[in-house]
Amino acid sequence: MNDPAERLAALRTLLREEGLTHYLVPSSDEHLSEYPPAWRLRRPWLSGFTGSAGDVLVGIEDAWLFVDGRYHVQAAAELAGSGISLSRVGAPGQLTLFEHLHQVAKDTEGAVVGYEPWIVSSAFALALREVVEGGGGDLRSVKSELVDRIWQDRPVAVRTPLVPVATEWAGRPTGEKLAELRASLQELGADATVLVKLDQIAWLTNCRSADDVAFNPVFEGYAWVDAEQLVVFVHGGSERLPEGLDLPGVRFEDYEGFRSFLQARSEGGSVLLDPTGITRGVEALLEQRDQQILLAPSPVEAAKARKNEQERDGMRRANRQASAAKTRSLWWVKDTCAKGETVTERRFLEHIESTYRQMKDYWGLSFRTISAAGAHSALPHYGNADDTPLKSGELFLIDSGTQNAGGTTDDTRTIVIGQPSAEQRRIYTLVLKCHIASAAQVFPAGTPGSALDALTRAPLWAAGLDYDHGTGHGVGCFLNVHEGPFALSDQKRKPFAATPLEEGMITSIEPGYYREGWGGIRIENLYLIVEDHVDESGRQWLRFDSLTFIPLEDELIDVDLLDAQERAWLEAYRSRTKQELTSELTQEELARL
Amino acid sequence: MNDPAERLAALRTLLREEGLTHYLVPSSDEHLSEYPPAWRLRRPWLSGFTGSAGDVLVGIEDAWLFVDGRYHVQAAAELAGSGISLSRVGAPGQLTLFEHLHQVAKDTEGAVVGYEPWIVSSAFALALREVVEGGGGDLRSVKSELVDRIWQDRPVAVRTPLVPVATEWAGRPTGEKLAELRASLQELGADATVLVKLDQIAWLTNCRSADDVAFNPVFEGYAWVDAEQLVVFVHGGSERLPEGLDLPGVRFEDYEGFRSFLQARSEGGSVLLDPTGITRGVEALLEQRDQQILLAPSPVEAAKARKNEQERDGMRRANRQASAAKTRSLWWVKDTCAKGETVTERRFLEHIESTYRQMKDYWGLSFRTISAAGAHSALPHYGNADDTPLKSGELFLIDSGTQNAGGTTDDTRTIVIGQPSAEQRRIYTLVLKCHIASAAQVFPAGTPGSALDALTRAPLWAAGLDYDHGTGHGVGCFLNVHEGPFALSDQKRKPFAATPLEEGMITSIEPGYYREGWGGIRIENLYLIVEDHVDESGRQWLRFDSLTFIPLEDELIDVDLLDAQERAWLEAYRSRTKQELTSELTQEELARL
Repeated sequence: MNDPAERLAALRTLLREEGLTHYLVPSSDEHLSEYPPAWRLRRPWLSGFTGSAGDVLVGIEDAWLFVDGRYHVQAAAELAGSGISLSRVGAPGQLTLFEHLHQVAKDTEGAVVGYEPWIVSSAFALALREVVEGGGGDLRSVKSELVDRIWQDRPVAVRTPLVPVATEWAGRPTGEKLAELRASLQELGADATVLVKLDQIAWLTNCRSADDVAFNPVFEGYAWVDAEQLVVFVHGGSERLPEGLDLPGVRFEDYEGFRSFLQARSEGGSVLLDPTGITRGVEALLEQRDQQILLAPSPVEAAKARKNEQERDGMRRANRQASAAKTRSLWWVKDTCAKGETVTERRFLEHIESTYRQMKDYWGLSFRTISAAGAHSALPHYGNADDTPLKSGELFLIDSGTQNAGGTTDDTRTIVIGQPSAEQRRIYTLVLKCHIASAAQVFPAGTPGSALDALTRAPLWAAGLDYDHGTGHGVGCFLNVHEGPFALSDQKRKPFAATPLEEGMITSIEPGYYREGWGGIRIENLYLIVEDHVDESGRQWLRFDSLTFIPLEDELIDVDLLDAQERAWLEAYRSRTKQELTSELTQEELARL
Repeated sequence: MNDPAERLAALRTLLREEGLTHYLVPSSDEHLSEYPPAWRLRRPWLSGFTGSAGDVLVGIEDAWLFVDGRYHVQAAAELAGSGISLSRVGAPGQLTLFEHLHQVAKDTEGAVVGYEPWIVSSAFALALREVVEGGGGDLRSVKSELVDRIWQDRPVAVRTPLVPVATEWAGRPTGEKLAELRASLQELGADATVLVKLDQIAWLTNCRSADDVAFNPVFEGYAWVDAEQLVVFVHGGSERLPEGLDLPGVRFEDYEGFRSFLQARSEGGSVLLDPTGITRGVEALLEQRDQQILLAPSPVEAAKARKNEQERDGMRRANRQASAAKTRSLWWVKDTCAKGETVTERRFLEHIESTYRQMKDYWGLSFRTISAAGAHSALPHYGNADDTPLKSGELFLIDSGTQNAGGTTDDTRTIVIGQPSAEQRRIYTLVLKCHIASAAQVFPAGTPGSALDALTRAPLWAAGLDYDHGTGHGVGCFLNVHEGPFALSDQKRKPFAATPLEEGMITSIEPGYYREGWGGIRIENLYLIVEDHVDESGRQWLRFDSLTFIPLEDELIDVDLLDAQERAWLEAYRSRTKQELTSELTQEELARL
């Protein structure tokens, strides 16, 4: 079974056996991860589509993949010949998964849609139920995941030892985080909570793993927290504990024991579950055990988002180092091209990744490096750096980031090879105006990320242009490069963009513009949200403090399009960049800045 | 029973009889109206607070009024001596009604909160249930409204004949609107719908009344629509029909027959109800009659918001007339003050209202005129124009609007008497920048009003300032000056600010700034949302086309604070004002522009 068509056929046999007309193969896994471990990558294995987000709905007659604007082009290429149709969500007339499902439920005689409740969130399962049953269809849980049953040569779970994070980096020991979590649970009237999200468990235990998942230094596990105990379920149980690690009040058990642990809950009690951060499988099992379910946002997610002083220092240090590395790599491109040598996407990728590896605290990449030349830069998540050469007159977009011990980085620069066109300068300057619109904005505490998203888009909107992705995402500290509980986005795209922004959160600001064939531009920095001032009425005002210091592409900036405030921001960013990189660059390099 | 304390005492006797610890007296009435008819004004009668929004919660021991930033100052004054405490919602540490109720439910031994389901929306009742029961209390429906039982000398309902709206103004006859509504119902899978909102019924029947309610030309009624009939329930039934009006397929019945009409529903069927546009009483009664309830936004509300060509013309005509009237009144203030004569708030109010009455199509005011001098202008909804004189060096804020046959108007100007201070100029210019930020913005169709709200606030935020009200509201055509289903607001303040903006909607843009003691500034125009262009991908882009043309206060504009685009907008607005008012002003007046 080496091609998607055979896999689909095998899956359809199971659909018939189960009495299903449709079966959902979502992107997400048992831990609602953006980057699942290799052995959980069901949707990529089934469909051939390798992007980080996109759900497949397999019917007896047809099959569909639903992807947002980031993946319209890539998905079309990867699906070729698979027998799976593509819905370009966001484009006019294209249906979302839910819209499609509703229609399927209405139009299919006796529609029965199957899904695995242990790999989707409670909120997702509820919405699923509404659209399927609202359309007159049946929604049915399967006893075990169907793709797993046909997946031969499936990878196995990782069991290498975990790595403890020093308290000087984590800022707070597990015991302190646990005490705070228990206080929050008590305040919310809950006796316990369950965590399935890997970054929450890694944050709480101050442990990491380099081996479980690509890019995210987390490990596969579940956690149960109540007033007496923290039980962590990992592959291999306590054998995965690093030598010499002592976590009082924490018990490590085998991953496979998690469901029976929940099943053994016999005393009544209330369990706090985050509807978007827990799987429906966990919720349903606890309901069966007569536990009172308290649905509320997870206190762990909120606490993790507000970085402590040590985490802020770690993020500053990591981003200074990664900024210096990218600055050097960009100079190398310019110098190499100027010498008439050919630089390809892959050669650049290898160069910057080797530059990253020279950083003192380097641990790994935080996501797949995007090294996109010319037309490839029009794909916001282009992940296939190849032998395409950087050509004079074309754009080159580099979105990359690293995990350093104590910090995570993520930044994007777009440069031009040779002389820019007027249109390239106009668009770059518009995207820069968008970036500054948020980066320079003072705003009251409590403002939702959606407000900043709107502000950021305004300069492009004024020119009748837009970008089909969010404006910014939360960033973990030596953790996932994408984290909640907030986002700079419209609320339709990401409902949690309604979450109020708070001091200590770290977000990317990354407006862009993409035109098929022509190319794309994105300018991304990470920012720490800091207090600007407290006014007379006691209201706190916030602003963004940059963590990323990489020169912008002067040749692409049309200063005439900038107003006085935008110019002032640019000037301040230039001089701050020199100052911040002083510790990272040589005298010669500093002079070049 | 002439004072609130006696009324509270009488009400508490009823609370005890009913076994309630608390009873809710909301602003809203049987028709969820912002301006209820006199005989429905229960909360003002009970509390003495006359503002348009604010709910009272009466407990056995205490009583609270909850008002937003518009009414913090006014409510404090009107509540003095009433025995009712004030919660200034939005101010630090102050609770919303729901937060307070949740606490009450948690802290009161055996809390039983009573409410009348026929005067709150289904969505409100659901939220009420969640907070009260979530806090461990009981929520109980009362059999009949408690304030009504103690209200002596209560006004009676109006029965004067309705006024038909000519089709040249309404644009579409009732039959056409009904056919479209029935098609929408069918598409949504509903057999019928119920309307309780007065502007929806007035819009659908193309009828108005000058007598039922202050400011809104609507009449008290209910409507039932199914595939065969439109039944309208009004006081006096068919006797209220205007002479010679023939509405095929429409039956007028007596208002009192509405509940028994619903009770008589015996055949099964699905009824579409808008959770924020229907009362819980209607929903509960239909549930009892085994009707299948389909909760969805009302197609009537959406259709009413998209103005047809005749309505757009009517709105343009009315706003041109009202703009000319306000322009003349503002000149009169300046001239009269320049002569050394005293102008008071009341004298101005009488002047502008008499100027309005001279308009060809004048029908009435669309809300209580705000004529606020000096410190009074810090009260966004100051409604008590008195003998306060306009003083040199002070601000004067006038927010007023009219109902004209065929159109509704609403606009605000702030002027300075004599010479402005530097701070007045700085703030006025900041508010103007906010106004222009939205007014000049091109944006993609589907953008929610909340995005425009954020854009509008940005210039004030940058200075650490803000305003505690929404940025804009929908405006009816010869109907309510506030209407749905969208708003320019943050979604926390108004959840329906998530509604996508569409071509043909009419909204106010009205940023402001208020400082107690110092004064307030607001600049408000009405705008029609029009298509800007359709791009290559088929995406429609929108912009705002002004309906209001009243000169801005040049003396308060610090041009140095405006960027090139803002100056261009201002210049275009000035020249468009001259052009639009050509038909309304004399040659001499035009020269003054």
